[in-house]
Amino acid sequence: MRAVVIDEGGLRLDERPDPVPGDTELLIEVRAAGLNGADMLQRRGGYPSPPGVPADIPGLELAGEVIAVGHQVTRFSPGERVMGIVGGGAQAERCVIDESHALGVPEGLGWSEAGGFPETFCTAFDALFSQAALGAGERLLVTGAAGGVGTAAVQLAHAAGAVVVASVRDERSRGALVPLGADEVIGPDEVPARGPYEVVLELVGAASVPAALGALATGGRVVVIGIGSGGEVQFHLGQLMALRARISGSTLRARDRTAKAVVVEAVRRHVVPNLAAGRLRVPVAETFGLDEAERAYERFAAGGKVGKIVLVAR
Amino acid sequence: MRAVVIDEGGLRLDERPDPVPGDTELLIEVRAAGLNGADMLQRRGGYPSPPGVPADIPGLELAGEVIAVGHQVTRFSPGERVMGIVGGGAQAERCVIDESHALGVPEGLGWSEAGGFPETFCTAFDALFSQAALGAGERLLVTGAAGGVGTAAVQLAHAAGAVVVASVRDERSRGALVPLGADEVIGPDEVPARGPYEVVLELVGAASVPAALGALATGGRVVVIGIGSGGEVQFHLGQLMALRARISGSTLRARDRTAKAVVVEAVRRHVVPNLAAGRLRVPVAETFGLDEAERAYERFAAGGKVGKIVLVAR
Repeated sequence: MRAVVIDEGGLRLDERPDPVPGDTELLIEVRAAGLNGADMLQRRGGYPSPPGVPADIPGLELAGEVIAVGHQVTRFSPGERVMGIVGGGAQAERCVIDESHALGVPEGLGWSEAGGFPETFCTAFDALFSQAALGAGERLLVTGAAGGVGTAAVQLAHAAGAVVVASVRDERSRGALVPLGADEVIGPDEVPARGPYEVVLELVGAASVPAALGALATGGRVVVIGIGSGGEVQFHLGQLMALRARISGSTLRARDRTAKAVVVEAVRRHVVPNLAAGRLRVPVAETFGLDEAERAYERFAAGGKVGKIVLVAR
Repeated sequence: MRAVVIDEGGLRLDERPDPVPGDTELLIEVRAAGLNGADMLQRRGGYPSPPGVPADIPGLELAGEVIAVGHQVTRFSPGERVMGIVGGGAQAERCVIDESHALGVPEGLGWSEAGGFPETFCTAFDALFSQAALGAGERLLVTGAAGGVGTAAVQLAHAAGAVVVASVRDERSRGALVPLGADEVIGPDEVPARGPYEVVLELVGAASVPAALGALATGGRVVVIGIGSGGEVQFHLGQLMALRARISGSTLRARDRTAKAVVVEAVRRHVVPNLAAGRLRVPVAETFGLDEAERAYERFAAGGKVGKIVLVAR
């Protein structure tokens, strides 16, 4: 098979042997694989793969057809359309995925959308609801809201009855967030003036955390799941104490097989039905071929896009 | 009545009119009132009193006899021995307290112990169980474990089946923590080598937070309730993300009447019975008269003590 390979910080297409599915795994003919912030870190050598995952083939989410299954697999059969999360290796023509990390692709959903859904929506759902316990009527600030996780979070929070304020850096992205469910779209420097927020979903990094803390309500929760702009943070603990607030961090990739399956199961139950019904959508900013990975990564890093950058395998 | 009064950073005994109990309040003849870290901050002007509380009389906890009650009071009658938490004003001969913030003093418990119990045990119980959700079998690190909140936390966590590591600065305090339930007592510089800890109760301040984060288990929780050594903290958010960890802060005093009543009710149910049965105790390091407040505060700040410093009113 052909695979995107990280080679001294660059990306190139290379020939690799097909992966072999383990007992509980599906072998997937990949049709689409979304890009994520973690791919950018991995490309720079800053985000090593977990054990059992190809070290130099990036890609944390995919959609495609099942072409073979391990002998303990019970949920999926060859020929089915699936999408799901993997620890790496998705940006290739074939990839294996644990069946507990895979979801059926709803009828009518295109490959690009399906390939950009799993990591993004699993990450956003888990951060908002499992980590931050966002509830109806609460006020949420999403920083860096125009990206894949941000557009997922805005939609999920809106659908759950939260009041959503989306913060975006690029003026051009503003108009796209309102149709997704943002009650208000602001620039990053406007953050402290709004609020107070019960929950802040931090997708930018350390630089915007002090402002987020300053705009937090009593009992507020900051969940950090993106630190693309840097991770070294400084603040006064008295701020947390006075508000009985908390700041937490989370990644999907570092979790073990069972913990990931729990997240995927929650998304199967609470998110996929709304995706199938057209109440949620996966905004795809642009697609690239596998042989255009370098350009796709540059596009991802450049900003100013709304939604996902997706590699299309064939 | 006579009251300890903060006067340009110093403390002196002054004459004040007796407070008048509101509808839901008890007027207390104070017998003992414990000192807390917040008193030190308030004395330096750094911790203003909440509304409705005397601005210049310190004291967040007391024990004494009920001498009058507001006309909506249902739980207590004149003559009863009570202890409880107030927003300030406890370090005086008389003080008012909301009945929902008061607890009956168990038979056989001395006034000094009762006066050093409420703020300390409410703070420790709330931080460990309501904030950090500490469970049996989990490993807890208590920094600054020799003080009032620390000795309460060590006992409460031990009684709940946690594995307790107590960190103390003063060599002389080490021996006292084991009889209270510490499985291990370490010096502050030993922290990073032990662990991992599911929960860290941070009673010292910002300086020990990076080490605590470094010793945290996956899913770990740091709860900051004391920042006597300083509050400005710096760390890398990637640490929180990789561990799916969180850091939160809390104070009891900033909460509203209902939120405080919830904490006191939990302590009434889960802590007071064990105190009454002798399974928990209130270590009192030293007592001082109301007219010795200045010396008592100096003793509190000096460190090297185990348990509470308590002012005895008569």
